[in-house]
Amino acid sequence: MNSTEKEQKINEILTRGVEEIFIKKDLEEKLRSGKTLRVKLGFDPTGAKIHIGRAIVLRKLKAFQELGHTIVFIVGDFTAKIGDPSDKLEKRPMLSDEDIQKNLTTYKEQVGKIIDLSKAEFHYNATWLSKLTFAEIAELAESFSVQQMLARRNFKDRYDAGTEISLREFLYPLMQGYDSVAINSDVELGGFDQLFNVKAGRVIQKHYGKPEQNVMVTQMLEGIDGRKMSTSWGNVINTTDEPSDMYGKLMAVRDDLIVKYLWLTTELSSDDINALDQQLKDGENPRNIKMRLAREVVALYHGAKAGEDAEADFIGTFQKGGIPEHVEEIVVENNVPIKDVLIKKEIVSSGTEWRRLVEEGAIKNAETGEIISDPFCVVKENTVLKIGKKRFVKIVI
Amino acid sequence: MNSTEKEQKINEILTRGVEEIFIKKDLEEKLRSGKTLRVKLGFDPTGAKIHIGRAIVLRKLKAFQELGHTIVFIVGDFTAKIGDPSDKLEKRPMLSDEDIQKNLTTYKEQVGKIIDLSKAEFHYNATWLSKLTFAEIAELAESFSVQQMLARRNFKDRYDAGTEISLREFLYPLMQGYDSVAINSDVELGGFDQLFNVKAGRVIQKHYGKPEQNVMVTQMLEGIDGRKMSTSWGNVINTTDEPSDMYGKLMAVRDDLIVKYLWLTTELSSDDINALDQQLKDGENPRNIKMRLAREVVALYHGAKAGEDAEADFIGTFQKGGIPEHVEEIVVENNVPIKDVLIKKEIVSSGTEWRRLVEEGAIKNAETGEIISDPFCVVKENTVLKIGKKRFVKIVI
Repeated sequence: MNSTEKEQKINEILTRGVEEIFIKKDLEEKLRSGKTLRVKLGFDPTGAKIHIGRAIVLRKLKAFQELGHTIVFIVGDFTAKIGDPSDKLEKRPMLSDEDIQKNLTTYKEQVGKIIDLSKAEFHYNATWLSKLTFAEIAELAESFSVQQMLARRNFKDRYDAGTEISLREFLYPLMQGYDSVAINSDVELGGFDQLFNVKAGRVIQKHYGKPEQNVMVTQMLEGIDGRKMSTSWGNVINTTDEPSDMYGKLMAVRDDLIVKYLWLTTELSSDDINALDQQLKDGENPRNIKMRLAREVVALYHGAKAGEDAEADFIGTFQKGGIPEHVEEIVVENNVPIKDVLIKKEIVSSGTEWRRLVEEGAIKNAETGEIISDPFCVVKENTVLKIGKKRFVKIVI
Repeated sequence: MNSTEKEQKINEILTRGVEEIFIKKDLEEKLRSGKTLRVKLGFDPTGAKIHIGRAIVLRKLKAFQELGHTIVFIVGDFTAKIGDPSDKLEKRPMLSDEDIQKNLTTYKEQVGKIIDLSKAEFHYNATWLSKLTFAEIAELAESFSVQQMLARRNFKDRYDAGTEISLREFLYPLMQGYDSVAINSDVELGGFDQLFNVKAGRVIQKHYGKPEQNVMVTQMLEGIDGRKMSTSWGNVINTTDEPSDMYGKLMAVRDDLIVKYLWLTTELSSDDINALDQQLKDGENPRNIKMRLAREVVALYHGAKAGEDAEADFIGTFQKGGIPEHVEEIVVENNVPIKDVLIKKEIVSSGTEWRRLVEEGAIKNAETGEIISDPFCVVKENTVLKIGKKRFVKIVI
């Protein structure tokens, strides 16, 4: 990388997909200093799927890594083990060491598609947090005022609404902040709602006489329908989604979100994105821009060929009216209602959603065009189902 | 003690000087059950003088002790050692082990005048609090909501006024509450402003599956002038005050407070106090009732004879216009201004107070009646000073 490329990369790190940086000037200096920075990201080892909204911060980490900085992942096993505060009745640990290991594997599989894990560090925060004494915690707590905590949006909204906030929740920023001390973080990244938590690291580092990290939170990405991403609304694209499924969902992105999706979920250059943006403004059919978006994103997670195949399928299906070449196959046992299979496989999010789809006539036999109107329908032979306008599933007996 | 006496004693425990009991019915049952109760009182080992307002809760403990219950003192050495939150710059421990030992001796000397210490227990809370892990503290914190904490008067007033509340302060009730678990408290006592803290013990005991203590807070006693007791206002009577001084200050109690002082600071029976109250209502000179109050209180802390002597002195002085027999003596070096001596010995609270007294002509040579009008006056020979209407001090060169 020559110095012009490097400078360009730094500028992009500081702007693209960035919601807020604190303190931007300091981070800029650190990035230009030539020092190898320790860039921290904490995560909960819950084993959840990573959607392309959550992946924004991972893509940002990748950019730091490409500049030669060290990515340090903090596995939040401490809070995972001491139990879920919302589970008041059973005070058992939320996750066993075994669970955490399993979930970490799941996490690494997904993150490994973005970050070069061979160059990254992973640390378990129970290593240091379990050793803190009450005296030390009380001292850390002295660094925060109740007013500061309540000013945090998440707490403020709940306080104003009269919803209970557990005192325990006030201790979490202390934990996250102490992690920064333990691993000597220079920069901490977080999602759009993490500003308060990542800033806590600065306070605690200062308390221990260490240099204060800079913090960066990335932008929020809406779901394909413009609402907040939520599995129960079916507007989420996971990084593990099958190519054709991922492609199909991206083709359903609301037109006014196309450019934001280009900036936040692809690695297209600024020049390319600005050009596509201009085409849209000049009256280009949004469908064509979305095809580009969809191909790029599928390529990022499944390789360039998968992107091209998904595109070819899409053209074959929707421009020629047929069934795509690559359709997800689901093997079912005899006499199991389709409903149960689709919900189990998370193709349909709930019984309510299923009933709505059936009532709308949105479930069809893709080969015959026959609408399935019985919500308890059982398929007796191999069938390709069409769900809504763009999704296909092959039921194999 | 026969059963009628015992019943009377229980009734008195539950009412006299009591601000609030939670839950009264439960405590009543415990007291009648015949079980030996563990009655807790926590204190900070600061070495401070105990005034007769703070002694109210100690007199209440004495009543429990007379019924055969076990008094358990918690020495708050944990917080004392981890440092004063208000001292943000120097993070050193507030008190050393040696300081704490010395202060505990001071405390025991004073408390020993009220409680039979040979039958009481003393425990240091650092013993258990220093061993708690972050995981355990987070669990305890789960038992409290931020809203509950902020509802506490002390916090509410500050929050409403926009005054900073450190997160650390929210952790103190957890500590005090855990003390109750550690010593298996059945009842916890506290001063009038301690309701929230003593109630915290119930929450934490419940968390650990232990029976919940009952709590009792005692009434507040105003200073002799009706304002809040404060050393800087000179309206405080300490349990260690010399007999003549104590007697003199009690004679200055505002008339409308006499009966409250009788209830809260003496061991006179209810019948006696009600009779004295009636005398006042029937037009008796309040001075005569105050003499009884003063004699009783002096007797409690210095013995019956000291009470009688102080009374005789008072009669000799004020009813015959002379100088009392027993006058506090202060030995001073040559050429030291009286002002400095009196402030150092805490006879006058401040330079401002001293100047006010001089300006009012309230400082006199008691033998000659000469008014001292020079605020920087130096005494050259042994002199009895009269300060205000009732106090005498002998300056000895």
